[in-house]
Amino acid sequence: MNRKPERLKSGSMTLPAEAGHEAWVAELARRWGADFIRDSDGTKLSDELLKLGLKVYSTICLVRDDQEWARAHMDRMPEIFLMSAPVTAIEDTVEIEPLQGFHPEKYSLDTQHDPKEWWEVINRTSGEIVPVGQWRFDAGRGRVVIRNARPFHVYTVNVLCWVIWDTTSMYNHITNHWNKPHVVGVDPYFPDCRQHLMDYFDRWLEQHPETELVRLTTLAYHFVLIWDERGKEKFIDWTGYQETVNIEALKDFEKEYGYRLRSEDFVDEGYYHAANRVPSPRWLDWMDFVHRFVVRFGAALVEKCRRAGKKTGIFWGDHWTGVEPYSPAFQKMGIDAHIGAAEDGVAVRRVSDAPGPQLKELRLYPYFFPDVFHPGGDPTRESQANWIKIRRAILRRPIDRIGYGGYPSLTKGFPEFVTHVEELLAEFRAIKEAAAGKESWKPRLKVLVINAWGRRKAWINSFGPQQKFLVKRQDVIVVAGTNLLECLAGLPVHVDFAALEQIARTGVPDDVDVVLNDGDAETAWSGGSHWANPDVVAAVRAFVHRGGGLLGCRGPSAWARQGRYFQLADVLGVDREVNQGIANAAFKPEAESGHFITAEVSAELDCGVPESFVFACRPSTRLLSERNGHVMLAANTYGKGRSVYFAGLPYSLENARLLHRALFWAAGKEDRMTHWFSENPLTDCAFWPETGRLAVVNNSGMLQSTVVHAADGSKRRVRLAPYQITWPSARAERADSKKDRCQP
Amino acid sequence: MNRKPERLKSGSMTLPAEAGHEAWVAELARRWGADFIRDSDGTKLSDELLKLGLKVYSTICLVRDDQEWARAHMDRMPEIFLMSAPVTAIEDTVEIEPLQGFHPEKYSLDTQHDPKEWWEVINRTSGEIVPVGQWRFDAGRGRVVIRNARPFHVYTVNVLCWVIWDTTSMYNHITNHWNKPHVVGVDPYFPDCRQHLMDYFDRWLEQHPETELVRLTTLAYHFVLIWDERGKEKFIDWTGYQETVNIEALKDFEKEYGYRLRSEDFVDEGYYHAANRVPSPRWLDWMDFVHRFVVRFGAALVEKCRRAGKKTGIFWGDHWTGVEPYSPAFQKMGIDAHIGAAEDGVAVRRVSDAPGPQLKELRLYPYFFPDVFHPGGDPTRESQANWIKIRRAILRRPIDRIGYGGYPSLTKGFPEFVTHVEELLAEFRAIKEAAAGKESWKPRLKVLVINAWGRRKAWINSFGPQQKFLVKRQDVIVVAGTNLLECLAGLPVHVDFAALEQIARTGVPDDVDVVLNDGDAETAWSGGSHWANPDVVAAVRAFVHRGGGLLGCRGPSAWARQGRYFQLADVLGVDREVNQGIANAAFKPEAESGHFITAEVSAELDCGVPESFVFACRPSTRLLSERNGHVMLAANTYGKGRSVYFAGLPYSLENARLLHRALFWAAGKEDRMTHWFSENPLTDCAFWPETGRLAVVNNSGMLQSTVVHAADGSKRRVRLAPYQITWPSARAERADSKKDRCQP
Repeated sequence: MNRKPERLKSGSMTLPAEAGHEAWVAELARRWGADFIRDSDGTKLSDELLKLGLKVYSTICLVRDDQEWARAHMDRMPEIFLMSAPVTAIEDTVEIEPLQGFHPEKYSLDTQHDPKEWWEVINRTSGEIVPVGQWRFDAGRGRVVIRNARPFHVYTVNVLCWVIWDTTSMYNHITNHWNKPHVVGVDPYFPDCRQHLMDYFDRWLEQHPETELVRLTTLAYHFVLIWDERGKEKFIDWTGYQETVNIEALKDFEKEYGYRLRSEDFVDEGYYHAANRVPSPRWLDWMDFVHRFVVRFGAALVEKCRRAGKKTGIFWGDHWTGVEPYSPAFQKMGIDAHIGAAEDGVAVRRVSDAPGPQLKELRLYPYFFPDVFHPGGDPTRESQANWIKIRRAILRRPIDRIGYGGYPSLTKGFPEFVTHVEELLAEFRAIKEAAAGKESWKPRLKVLVINAWGRRKAWINSFGPQQKFLVKRQDVIVVAGTNLLECLAGLPVHVDFAALEQIARTGVPDDVDVVLNDGDAETAWSGGSHWANPDVVAAVRAFVHRGGGLLGCRGPSAWARQGRYFQLADVLGVDREVNQGIANAAFKPEAESGHFITAEVSAELDCGVPESFVFACRPSTRLLSERNGHVMLAANTYGKGRSVYFAGLPYSLENARLLHRALFWAAGKEDRMTHWFSENPLTDCAFWPETGRLAVVNNSGMLQSTVVHAADGSKRRVRLAPYQITWPSARAERADSKKDRCQP
Repeated sequence: MNRKPERLKSGSMTLPAEAGHEAWVAELARRWGADFIRDSDGTKLSDELLKLGLKVYSTICLVRDDQEWARAHMDRMPEIFLMSAPVTAIEDTVEIEPLQGFHPEKYSLDTQHDPKEWWEVINRTSGEIVPVGQWRFDAGRGRVVIRNARPFHVYTVNVLCWVIWDTTSMYNHITNHWNKPHVVGVDPYFPDCRQHLMDYFDRWLEQHPETELVRLTTLAYHFVLIWDERGKEKFIDWTGYQETVNIEALKDFEKEYGYRLRSEDFVDEGYYHAANRVPSPRWLDWMDFVHRFVVRFGAALVEKCRRAGKKTGIFWGDHWTGVEPYSPAFQKMGIDAHIGAAEDGVAVRRVSDAPGPQLKELRLYPYFFPDVFHPGGDPTRESQANWIKIRRAILRRPIDRIGYGGYPSLTKGFPEFVTHVEELLAEFRAIKEAAAGKESWKPRLKVLVINAWGRRKAWINSFGPQQKFLVKRQDVIVVAGTNLLECLAGLPVHVDFAALEQIARTGVPDDVDVVLNDGDAETAWSGGSHWANPDVVAAVRAFVHRGGGLLGCRGPSAWARQGRYFQLADVLGVDREVNQGIANAAFKPEAESGHFITAEVSAELDCGVPESFVFACRPSTRLLSERNGHVMLAANTYGKGRSVYFAGLPYSLENARLLHRALFWAAGKEDRMTHWFSENPLTDCAFWPETGRLAVVNNSGMLQSTVVHAADGSKRRVRLAPYQITWPSARAERADSKKDRCQP
């Protein structure tokens, strides 16, 4: 019965190589079946490595490659608007040292462009901009001096700064205790800089005849990681546009859009328009402006590669900013391969779901760096935990390749890890073969995730505030508390993303079964002020009323207005108490058991929050789980439709099953749920109609037994070793199930 | 050493009497040492009772006494604006049944006054008022019909209603399963009604020659308790002005203030301006308008009593509305006695701290009603728990009398309770004798509680949202979670209240040591939008900077603005994460032990909240207690001053001690704390310089030992039985301590 495919023992694998460790690299290439080798930040490919017979994939970090040119053109560095620490006026003069508290090796004040024109002094107590006549920059003392200040008002100054140390370079220095010269980046927006980069790239292409694929590890702009004076993270936004500033671009923007952006458009009260903030229309304009430039810049590089007979891949890590791979305009760039770092299923889906013909490669964690590969480190454990989540996701949407990065020599001391990767790659290749480039069979159930970003930030994790109260590792996203998306990443449903702005214009599309609004209150993820737009609210109500499903998690539709906090409280059947309605009584239904959604829940449900302050506000609300009176899970009906509310949904296999059931219930398609379905929630199955292959996996570290249901209702019992993937026969079901396949 | 005074075996006690139970009333009067008897709602004084030789104190509920007149003048009933349940437009016509969901015996629609003039139909999705031309009231079907509605927008209608059942009558009916005719109240604002009440009162005074004190149990307006159709509480505000509406008053208001109040000024999105809502200037205008009328009305009644040779007392229960005993204008009424129901120390201080020459009487719980006095009921336990809190408070500020209410016959089956009250009264009389009308000695430390209400709602509990998630008994305020005020009620510090509006105008007064801002975010208790007023923020900053103390609890100065949530985050050293600054790092100081504030904390501190989402935002912040990274208690310095933050402070003896220490630390007066101080936090002491008397109490149900410090540093060890009060000698310290007495 277990027909594990043996054909694909190699291929689809990118190995980081390292000069000076040729024998070990060759050994790894053999054991892991690599077909490509690559260089990484800090490693080079030697001639010996180039002669291993593997295809070569070369990393270029164009904007930070030519340090000589960069250092000779220090006015071509990227810039950023930073907000000083707030300073309180004790008397009527205030002095602010703008960069106090920021890492001194990372930023330097741009005084070349008139501070009076580009900086802003803001009274953060009154909210007013201080007139330029009331302050001056004392260059000698490096201080902004404000006159006629109002005592005990707090002042900040937004300053324009050069980024004098590339963020990745700085990160690597700090993480690895490097002692090399700091790397400086340049901004390709400047025509002279761009011209230099183009010429430089021409030469680089000539110098790399053996390169098959050019990996654009950087493109134009780095995401932002602001460091404090102690070398600790002060602000981080993995997909942010904060370091895209230059005066020329700002002036071009003004010409095109008819208005000038202020420093405060970037500083955003010190929140810097992080992904969790609801983007303003001005901010979206800027993102579009930058994106269009990045596409033009990228297209020129890709064209050069094409002429040189090479393919291009783009890495979604450091320089995601401006790339926007989910944007239709991105396709104009002509990129051949997407390469995304992936620690979990959400990261997989971010890559696998991206539209376009690009090849999809995952760069897995752990990165071969001493932060994990050190005596006492346990890279296997991290990898295994990641792999379970990743495998869940690739069983739903396939990816094409797997790779690693860093110093392969570091893996030498971890033989268990080397074997583990060998097995991991065998599983990956078996799934790849079964999938044959198609996604596995799914019932007709489409989930539309609605938030302020829509596809712009499809499959980007929305952190909760819990995140802030944890100790974290800086390179890995630790999502504390809730992560419904991770549950969703491995479910057999069709998923798409839409912006609330779009919903307001065109309503919920007809092919959608369930709209999902998951995010903390007043963030971009729940939608914040968009819920004050009657067209958004009415569109979702209309959709549910005519039979659609709504699944809300955390702070769905939260925006205090007109007597409620959840603007869709009437649909959800629940609202949150945010101290305004304390005198108004809640409905207090009894919690019920045996509902379709909670039919498999045995232990207490873990919504990741001790209190939700959510209460039932409709007589029709059915309370499915509560904790000390706080609603944790509730269901409601509205017109012909249904809604479900979760106080939170941290990732676990049990919660993934709970979401699975909630989606099918909300869609009114409970009967479809068990078509290709594995009963035991710690296991999973996937069926590919094109190849007739069926995979059954054990996502737990213990022996499991399960019953797998085919689409025709036939069942088979499967027993699985810890973490095992197995391939039972599925031929009989092929014809039937194809009929029901949904074309997303 | 134990010189318990024995003189005052009787007096200062008001006993509810009940015709038909004369012998038992006489027995209680003897055992409890009553000097006054009274009637209650539902009980009468018989001639036999009047001959017991006790002074008589007669209850009059003037506005609901003459049912015949009321029923003959149904257009003189009080009115209220109610908001209908929200109704969603499915098509372009919506129909709303305005009182659906409200108790049908409590309200009836006022259609005598033109609905088109006084009602409002509001689109709660767009926030717009629907033009009157777009809707009509179909009187036949009792429905508001809206045309040209926008599909999937939600509509409500604010309607004007007669209150056709007095709230207390309804409450008593429901609680006691009465089957009597419903009592109807009238609104004395109408001149004809007022005239009738005056005449009626004249006759009543003539008919009550034996009455020494007239207890105005009602005055003009009842607080609001809105009932739903099942007879369950729908909305409650113990001090609210919702049932003060009549068209004549609204028109007079318009003449005086130059603008007309809308129905929505009362309905307030369905929150009805409950005490937790930050009052709008329009609402405060209305409160003042009503208050001035109530004072005029009350003064006329008091004048009649004076002419009849009688005293007047006013009960702060059902008809607090408009009385405003903390308002300077209140004194114009000429009331002789304040009578307040008291279940805890906060309720005591509400009465004892009220300005003016009035005699202060507490009506203790439990009320002699079958909800507690029934087989299996335990009135002693409730009374004992209350008494410990009450005693803490009267050790700080004395009261003059104690009373009870209800059916004394019900106590017959509870001999333990009768004995317990006997002991309680003995303790009360001993304290009264020792205090001789003065407050006990306190170190020079003045706390100013600042919020949106100031003295208007001095010593009114601020509920947390937790309150909503509990099952409650309707007549008792169950403060779940936090209750810093209860801790404060028994501390030896001077306490006053001020409105933030006042602080903005005049700053923090010089005699204040610590300003206290305690309340949930965005409520009247923390201050909400007042913190957007730069003058408020700057005034508190200036006060702390020059050496003052700030103590914040729960959501102090919370109002999202200009990059922070706690507007005083710079002073407090902490801010709350409300999902906007997730990408910004927090400071993460180590929690420290051995601080002055936490020196006596042994177990984990109980702030009543599992998570605060509060983080350190200043390098100077000292973290004194945290829970999973969430700040529970922190301290900071700011200029010459200090601040303390508590995530919450539920009442307990341990937390009262914590607050005690925090206040002295914030004031920089740690050295003064142990002047007249009992070391064991489960015990307490009070010293009255005028009489030289010292009381030491055990607030716990176990034996305790403590060391009492005098102001001169001398110490004495005291051992106490459970709940005991004892009276050690204190004569030696008298002279010294008087010197240090603060004149508040």
